[in-house]
Amino acid sequence: MKYLSILGSTGSIGTQTLDIVRQFPNEFKVVGLTANKNFDLLLKQIKEFKPKAVAIMDRSKVDDLLNFSSSQVYSGIEGLKKIASLNECDSVVNALVGSVGIEPTYTAIKNKKNIALANKETLVAAGSVIMDEIEKNKVSLMPIDSEHSAIFQCLNGENINEIEKITLTCSGGPFKNYTKEQLKNATKDDALNHPTWNMGAKITIDSATLMNKGLEVIEAHWLYHIPYEKIEIVIHPQSIMHSLVQFHDRSVIAQLGLPDMKIPIQYALSYPKRLPSSSKPLNLAEIKNLEFKEPDFEAFPCLKYAYEAGGIGGTLPAAMNAANEVAVWSFLGDKIRFFDITILIKMAMDSHSLIKNPTIQEILDSDKKTKEETRKIIEEEAVAK
Amino acid sequence: MKYLSILGSTGSIGTQTLDIVRQFPNEFKVVGLTANKNFDLLLKQIKEFKPKAVAIMDRSKVDDLLNFSSSQVYSGIEGLKKIASLNECDSVVNALVGSVGIEPTYTAIKNKKNIALANKETLVAAGSVIMDEIEKNKVSLMPIDSEHSAIFQCLNGENINEIEKITLTCSGGPFKNYTKEQLKNATKDDALNHPTWNMGAKITIDSATLMNKGLEVIEAHWLYHIPYEKIEIVIHPQSIMHSLVQFHDRSVIAQLGLPDMKIPIQYALSYPKRLPSSSKPLNLAEIKNLEFKEPDFEAFPCLKYAYEAGGIGGTLPAAMNAANEVAVWSFLGDKIRFFDITILIKMAMDSHSLIKNPTIQEILDSDKKTKEETRKIIEEEAVAK
Repeated sequence: MKYLSILGSTGSIGTQTLDIVRQFPNEFKVVGLTANKNFDLLLKQIKEFKPKAVAIMDRSKVDDLLNFSSSQVYSGIEGLKKIASLNECDSVVNALVGSVGIEPTYTAIKNKKNIALANKETLVAAGSVIMDEIEKNKVSLMPIDSEHSAIFQCLNGENINEIEKITLTCSGGPFKNYTKEQLKNATKDDALNHPTWNMGAKITIDSATLMNKGLEVIEAHWLYHIPYEKIEIVIHPQSIMHSLVQFHDRSVIAQLGLPDMKIPIQYALSYPKRLPSSSKPLNLAEIKNLEFKEPDFEAFPCLKYAYEAGGIGGTLPAAMNAANEVAVWSFLGDKIRFFDITILIKMAMDSHSLIKNPTIQEILDSDKKTKEETRKIIEEEAVAK
Repeated sequence: MKYLSILGSTGSIGTQTLDIVRQFPNEFKVVGLTANKNFDLLLKQIKEFKPKAVAIMDRSKVDDLLNFSSSQVYSGIEGLKKIASLNECDSVVNALVGSVGIEPTYTAIKNKKNIALANKETLVAAGSVIMDEIEKNKVSLMPIDSEHSAIFQCLNGENINEIEKITLTCSGGPFKNYTKEQLKNATKDDALNHPTWNMGAKITIDSATLMNKGLEVIEAHWLYHIPYEKIEIVIHPQSIMHSLVQFHDRSVIAQLGLPDMKIPIQYALSYPKRLPSSSKPLNLAEIKNLEFKEPDFEAFPCLKYAYEAGGIGGTLPAAMNAANEVAVWSFLGDKIRFFDITILIKMAMDSHSLIKNPTIQEILDSDKKTKEETRKIIEEEAVAK
């Protein structure tokens, strides 16, 4: 039996994690839940799973939660950290969106919790610190992203010194056939219409700019201790092959499956076991075709930025990620145009004061400062308009 | 250092095995070689690799070999068994073609040699006996077939009780788009023109009838202790994905690579290590498309026969294989037409007297008897014409 705290339990990954817990009551028990604002769904989850404690970011909802449930109730970032370090919990599922996920992961590891990680920003911004703490505290870090779960599975029983390269597959998103020119007129509705994966709004926009893949390159670097020049991206519109590892004997191992996040979530929870799933099985004869092509680094400069930020390291990936977060939410709030996202990221990276071997606090400070600066630019531009 | 006896060293798999030995002189040493008739090439190999002992099937060549080399020289099936059990050898590469490979594998296992197996007939005809002996003698059996090597690699670090199904990929051979009617006019040149793999004549014809895939289904059953209803075939014309395993969590692991037999041969020799290869690496963006479709069991009845023979078991797969061997060589000798191959296999299976739990001798007897009967039918038909 694994005792889980699920951070971000009302989001896309959070609710799918609870579907799995529901299916395997003898394998998993929920002891902590957290939500951002979705009070109604959190309350429903509390009633069903009876966690020991919960947290809600929105402090105004604390009293209502106390009235309606018998769980302990916390709030804000301190609340997230509390749920990430509950005595009753042995594994933390981090399904938070954005850099708010960094501190809770760090706290969980310091408290000897195993981590199942969907929060990309944890490793993108704070990979060096997090991987050090993982090692020091002898806990496990299981990826939930389909690509990193794929690589993890491809490396089962293998020697990482024999890896020649890692290939992350990328659906290409809704704009995979767009030119740089066409991207200038991309709308929010277009960007939110992902061809293969059904995900939250932030990651869907990241998939349209391909920044999502850029973030994954940095994650893969940290998760598998692999240099950037050995990580490549291939566009694969069907999202059936989730990633590949080529070994130095030219043999390639790939993990495949229908685009269904429950498969990697369940694997992260059940590892080293595989539990039977009710998801639809893959039938390649039904799929018929798997296509592959090179990514277009010119039309999608976020890919370049990510390799650049990762290669330079230090606080630069944190700054890049911070600018991207603010830009994406501003785009979703109709404050900027689609191609402004990449412009804002470039500006943040160019003006960033790099700290080479940052502490966790320096990373959090870089994140905060870049977000403030990016918001300021957006506001001034809006005024200028 | 591994000390190798290579049975069938002048054939397609044998010569490629020696290419690998040549590349890794600190990993592999040849102590035994055998050839069927290719005296000139065997002599060249003896001069280069200086094996302790050699065997040639053709007894008339023994004296010449003794004159020209300092190796011990043996001949016939006894010679094969001698080379398979040399004291100096720890691993036997069985690259023989046909049921002549059964006895040497059996002898090698009895003499505690690890086996790298390219000879399909060993497991097709004698799977139950061979797998028992492998277990009793605590030796390893590494597949050289690209499909079974793929499955072996997909199962690295996995639990075979969590397998849901195994999918063997199949190029479809030169006749993949032929109807049953069109197959009636298939010529030898057409059949020998394999679209993706460059192999010996016997296996190339087996790839045209799809009997090769049928034999592989039976091999997979024995190698991975997997029931026939969990083994499926998918046509994949590019021969890039070499086979797949789906686990019960709906996650699929596949092994890929360019169609180059050196990759699985080297893996069988180097396992559990992977050695760096000079083979061309896979680039999916260059390949562009991987296609998949259901096999046509009506146009290619050998697939049905193999599932049927495997399912019934006993001596039936040995009989099926024996009829196929005689039919294929007769086709290559212009004695029968392409579609006669399947007719002869069906006749042999229908008239076979089944022994349910055969000994190795009963399997060899079934093989011999079916070959004699099939030859007789072919001769009588020729007379009738």
